[in-house]
Amino acid sequence: MNRDTVLNEMTNANSVSVQFADVRHAAERIRSFVHRTPVLTCAAISERVGCNVFFKCENFQKSGAFKFRGAVNSVAQLNEAELASGVVTHSSGNHAGALALAARMFGAKAHIVMPSNSSEIKKAAVREYGGLITECEPTLESRMSEAARIQRETGAVLIPPFDHPHVIAGQGTAALELMEQVPELDMIVAPIGGGGLMSGTCLAARELKPGIRIVGAEPLGADDAFQSKKAGKFIPQLSPDTVADGLRTSLGQLTWPFIRDEVDEVLLADDSATISAMKFFWERTKVIIEPSCAVPLAAIIQRFSEAGSKNSLGETPRDIGIIISGGNVDLQALPWSN
Amino acid sequence: MNRDTVLNEMTNANSVSVQFADVRHAAERIRSFVHRTPVLTCAAISERVGCNVFFKCENFQKSGAFKFRGAVNSVAQLNEAELASGVVTHSSGNHAGALALAARMFGAKAHIVMPSNSSEIKKAAVREYGGLITECEPTLESRMSEAARIQRETGAVLIPPFDHPHVIAGQGTAALELMEQVPELDMIVAPIGGGGLMSGTCLAARELKPGIRIVGAEPLGADDAFQSKKAGKFIPQLSPDTVADGLRTSLGQLTWPFIRDEVDEVLLADDSATISAMKFFWERTKVIIEPSCAVPLAAIIQRFSEAGSKNSLGETPRDIGIIISGGNVDLQALPWSN
Repeated sequence: MNRDTVLNEMTNANSVSVQFADVRHAAERIRSFVHRTPVLTCAAISERVGCNVFFKCENFQKSGAFKFRGAVNSVAQLNEAELASGVVTHSSGNHAGALALAARMFGAKAHIVMPSNSSEIKKAAVREYGGLITECEPTLESRMSEAARIQRETGAVLIPPFDHPHVIAGQGTAALELMEQVPELDMIVAPIGGGGLMSGTCLAARELKPGIRIVGAEPLGADDAFQSKKAGKFIPQLSPDTVADGLRTSLGQLTWPFIRDEVDEVLLADDSATISAMKFFWERTKVIIEPSCAVPLAAIIQRFSEAGSKNSLGETPRDIGIIISGGNVDLQALPWSN
Repeated sequence: MNRDTVLNEMTNANSVSVQFADVRHAAERIRSFVHRTPVLTCAAISERVGCNVFFKCENFQKSGAFKFRGAVNSVAQLNEAELASGVVTHSSGNHAGALALAARMFGAKAHIVMPSNSSEIKKAAVREYGGLITECEPTLESRMSEAARIQRETGAVLIPPFDHPHVIAGQGTAALELMEQVPELDMIVAPIGGGGLMSGTCLAARELKPGIRIVGAEPLGADDAFQSKKAGKFIPQLSPDTVADGLRTSLGQLTWPFIRDEVDEVLLADDSATISAMKFFWERTKVIIEPSCAVPLAAIIQRFSEAGSKNSLGETPRDIGIIISGGNVDLQALPWSN
């Protein structure tokens, strides 16, 4: 992937805007299809961070990740002719399985373009949900051209992984539920990959509690949101290098403005801190999270666990909500067994 | 350990009986100290087994295992003088951490005799809960003589890992809660190590639903309950060989009669099936269980998942409850990474 391709993809993206009302409508639309996931607390973690930490467990969501919310919100809005033509996307990760499952629920075919180096476990999930995999070269160009070819040949509707109003509105329902479940939150944290979850989180959290502190978390090796905010303009992620496989993507045309305007702060974590946080979470909660969700935890531990540390507003939050984005891990290749 | 030592230990065990009323009293006594753990279901697992499977998640219990119920029920019944003298036990596993935590809650010292080859993670848990570790040779003789020495020298009260009425009554509260949470169960399954959990389960389940099918599960490499039931007399476990580290123990004097008289059937699983079931559970539920709790799941999958299979009563159960005994796993040494 190079800079021109990324910027070109942004220019071609759907520029329709997305509002809080869309998140509300999405929540109604998808209610009977999704799990209302539980919120987990862990005394040992809250003690270590120094405030109450609430985890919104989207790892227990159908397909094992929040991605199912956006996928099913998109598929549910297709008409009969569109459903008959099927859907298509390109993804090496959780969006692939989520879309395959959502499509199956509506009786639609799902064409999933996956890079040839995608993990076997993600491919197996897509197959299990009845998705039709087309392998391609592991480049953004190849992924996009294969998806475009399938669109042309089958008439399938493209459901992109994050930069689409229906997808963003669907992802926002996770924060919507969390704010209902824990109204006392004074900070909400989500990981930033393409920015779909973060954008939806901004929509829900800012509307329901205008004064809440909205924080993104990124791996040090894929810090395009951090760099873009610092520069005041979009800077694509060219050579991501991080264990957090869900967070290697660049922001999109729809998601960047949310990061720019609504996210109060982007925290960073290096891979070593992320892996430690992931293991700590597994040991203490007995719940499996993938590396991408350990990034916010690692960042929060680093930021607040040292005695007397303050955030950039000079205040330590009391009740932090963290969206646990997924639990799809290859158990044969855990990051700490290397 | 040899046969004479085991039989000798049995003869010396406390022969006071334990009744359902003791389980009820234990539940009231420990209510404010324990978690009322959730019951988890997983569509993929129920589908594979062919009936509704309900998991009672004692891996989310304090100290990460059901053992905390028996430990805190025992410590809560000590008088002030006894608490001042402290408690002592010998254990390489979850009882060690559970007793250390229970003792700390009551301000008592906990002396824990642990074999020198105990896992680092179990030792770390005991230390974290403030337990005082005495290492000994990895033999039952050495464990018992060290514990006896500490009893003599400190006056500490021995809280054995399973063969004690207060411990059995405490463990029975897990099944008591499960029967309240899922009244429709027609089968309840627990793993059998020393038999404390199984005995308490028999007390609770048989009283609340006399016709329920009570099933134990054992590893093929530590099948003393299966062999004892078959022979109609207690046969000690001399050379256990199984990945299920919590289930290597022989039954006790108090627990054997429950296995003999109340357990309808003991199912066996070999280590390979246990490891597969454990991994399947992790992948599908995103919840961490230790090998000992995968034994019942493996046994149930083997027994019922083949189309048309029946249990020995000629009936397939509809609603099976399985007690997930703990989630304390050394993440650096998972059984499938070898």
